[in-house]
Amino acid sequence: MKHFELLCARCSKRYPFRYTSMKCACGGTLLVEYDLEALAAKVSKEALGRRVTSMWRYREWLPVTDDSAIVSLGEGWTPLVRLAAAERTLPLGQLWVKREEQNPTGSFKARGFSVAVSLLKEAGALRAAVPSNGNAAGALAAYAAFAGIRASVFIPQDCPALIVRESVMYGADTYVVDGLIHDAGAIIEAGKAAEGWVNVGTMREPGRVEGKKTMGLELAEQFGWQLPSVIVYPTGGGSGIVGMWKAFRELQAMGWVSGPLPRLVSVQEAGCTPLVEALIGARAEGMAARGGSATQPGGASPTGMRVPSPPDLPLVADCLRHSGGTAVAVSRDAIARAQRSLGALGVSASPEGAATWAGLLELCDSGWIRQDDTVVLFNTSHALKYALPASSGEAPLIRSYADYVRLRGS
Amino acid sequence: MKHFELLCARCSKRYPFRYTSMKCACGGTLLVEYDLEALAAKVSKEALGRRVTSMWRYREWLPVTDDSAIVSLGEGWTPLVRLAAAERTLPLGQLWVKREEQNPTGSFKARGFSVAVSLLKEAGALRAAVPSNGNAAGALAAYAAFAGIRASVFIPQDCPALIVRESVMYGADTYVVDGLIHDAGAIIEAGKAAEGWVNVGTMREPGRVEGKKTMGLELAEQFGWQLPSVIVYPTGGGSGIVGMWKAFRELQAMGWVSGPLPRLVSVQEAGCTPLVEALIGARAEGMAARGGSATQPGGASPTGMRVPSPPDLPLVADCLRHSGGTAVAVSRDAIARAQRSLGALGVSASPEGAATWAGLLELCDSGWIRQDDTVVLFNTSHALKYALPASSGEAPLIRSYADYVRLRGS
Repeated sequence: MKHFELLCARCSKRYPFRYTSMKCACGGTLLVEYDLEALAAKVSKEALGRRVTSMWRYREWLPVTDDSAIVSLGEGWTPLVRLAAAERTLPLGQLWVKREEQNPTGSFKARGFSVAVSLLKEAGALRAAVPSNGNAAGALAAYAAFAGIRASVFIPQDCPALIVRESVMYGADTYVVDGLIHDAGAIIEAGKAAEGWVNVGTMREPGRVEGKKTMGLELAEQFGWQLPSVIVYPTGGGSGIVGMWKAFRELQAMGWVSGPLPRLVSVQEAGCTPLVEALIGARAEGMAARGGSATQPGGASPTGMRVPSPPDLPLVADCLRHSGGTAVAVSRDAIARAQRSLGALGVSASPEGAATWAGLLELCDSGWIRQDDTVVLFNTSHALKYALPASSGEAPLIRSYADYVRLRGS
Repeated sequence: MKHFELLCARCSKRYPFRYTSMKCACGGTLLVEYDLEALAAKVSKEALGRRVTSMWRYREWLPVTDDSAIVSLGEGWTPLVRLAAAERTLPLGQLWVKREEQNPTGSFKARGFSVAVSLLKEAGALRAAVPSNGNAAGALAAYAAFAGIRASVFIPQDCPALIVRESVMYGADTYVVDGLIHDAGAIIEAGKAAEGWVNVGTMREPGRVEGKKTMGLELAEQFGWQLPSVIVYPTGGGSGIVGMWKAFRELQAMGWVSGPLPRLVSVQEAGCTPLVEALIGARAEGMAARGGSATQPGGASPTGMRVPSPPDLPLVADCLRHSGGTAVAVSRDAIARAQRSLGALGVSASPEGAATWAGLLELCDSGWIRQDDTVVLFNTSHALKYALPASSGEAPLIRSYADYVRLRGS
């Protein structure tokens, strides 16, 4: 008997646990709901301290029933490094960077796919597919390879060539798509019945949010169960925000943390800022004047933050709001400058990771960050994965599922 | 009063600790010698289990006196992942991969430079320089940046463009050199008096061997203080071999491990195999016929293994011999195949990391690996760092220190 089930984040309807189809009848997203009393009875902070130093130390907080199904390549428990030199130049208390680029596939996406692929293995699924701006594709490809599951990945054609190449290296069926990430997702939806794909796209299955949740659990434990005041996080589909907020609420319900929870800040690149628009609406116009323009198809660089139509925007916006957080748009130039600033501190920052630094500077300028705030930036991926712009020839280009079928047939 | 001094590995002459000039009068290399009794009195296996999950958990085994000088970016305590699927196809007991690519700068070089740069900071040094096939340059650049020390790096011009770019990203003075790694080293030696560089090249200072030593300490602890039977390690200058062997001998002297120590195997690419020649001499000729030719200038690919004139070849060869180990040459083609094999298992392997898989296959074929051996492969860096061949324009090209002076003047 499982100690977890599914709960609609919108209407609170309950469902037995399943590993696909996370949409409720009401249109809300289903999230995993644990019996936290049973969980608290099984594990203590002291016991945690002696466990494996991967995210699987949080075994009871993850919805995999069968231990032998766990697919682990050494993900999570990433370093949390204090940027003491930068603290002296900024109006804040402490500044830390969570080095998510040190995960197995060089990005934070490893966490979600470790859980998602474990669930596939547990269910006996043989094929999975994901639409991705790159890092999710690489992560699915690696974990599926390790588990002996066939992966198909669909990546907008303007995404960095090396990230496309990474999926090929892990042996995934890799395609570049003439369109954005939702166009890639539409190809999977069109083909999933015929191809037997489980769609492991953002919020299509429960593992990725739960895997990202471990970032929040880790922060709590690494800070000695005293949560930081502010988390600045580069946001695309938003499963990291939903996952971390879920982590803090679960720990709060268990009585493991107390006091105010962290204010969550989403950073997006100008040109694709659905969260900024959802959160600060009219005020976003003022921001647009300073370079933070509203969402235009293809208006932002091809990074993980470019998700014009997130699967459940209201859910992500609610997490930010309930936390007392906000959303910030930063320009491409500010991101480039931030990459140099983090590089000069010895940190290899992806554009997404660098965007958190750029967002932090905005929030310091505006006075939103307080003098005594402890701030954590998430560096979600390595700079070098983005070093090559898109190039033809890394993988076949398709426009539709029909193109895919034609190519497979030939 | 320090609980460590320097000891010549060749003639056993003792010296007070210093952070530069590791050559003894006899020509041997000076290594750090600890008071292991004092060390054992300060720390227990149980206490270690509760410590920071970086290589600095081995604080007492590292020659930094002042805690405030420690320069840490989250290095070490990397995952050790079991390759169960591969075990079923190979004539051995267990197969594990140590994921050193998950270090801060995407390679095992972070360990050595965390210690080396801490020693520079402790001594108040302001400038450091290193000759490198790439990963060492990136690591010095990052740690020096974090510590506020000026780094100059000199890289053979045929090394991968992204690794050169990494050093630039961290703000190091970066030069590519018309020659091999010892030519790059000669430029530093020619300029160090005038430029005030501390040469942090292999075995020029004590930190890098001691930092690499933590790989051996970690393996012991991660295996529950039962050492594996065989370690397969890609070898260039050899500080990793010297460091790990030192780790095992120190643990043995403390009574923390017992039984036979691991057999250490160095893997090198055909075309540059000084260790294979030193170790198996005449037999290397037979190997040459199968693609493992002897050392020719520029005969191997530009990877970390290409070090035709290691600073202390006899010392490295002695460590291999004393361990009951060996050295293996593998071809460029075998390395390329091995990258695909590890990719298909979900592991992003650098050419060096892949070479250990190629070497393992040779040792299984020859019967050198035994049915009950527990084998550990070291994946020292990410595949993607090598994705771009050398390209002009990443950094200025020089041939000599005079060229350097000319460029700096202009």
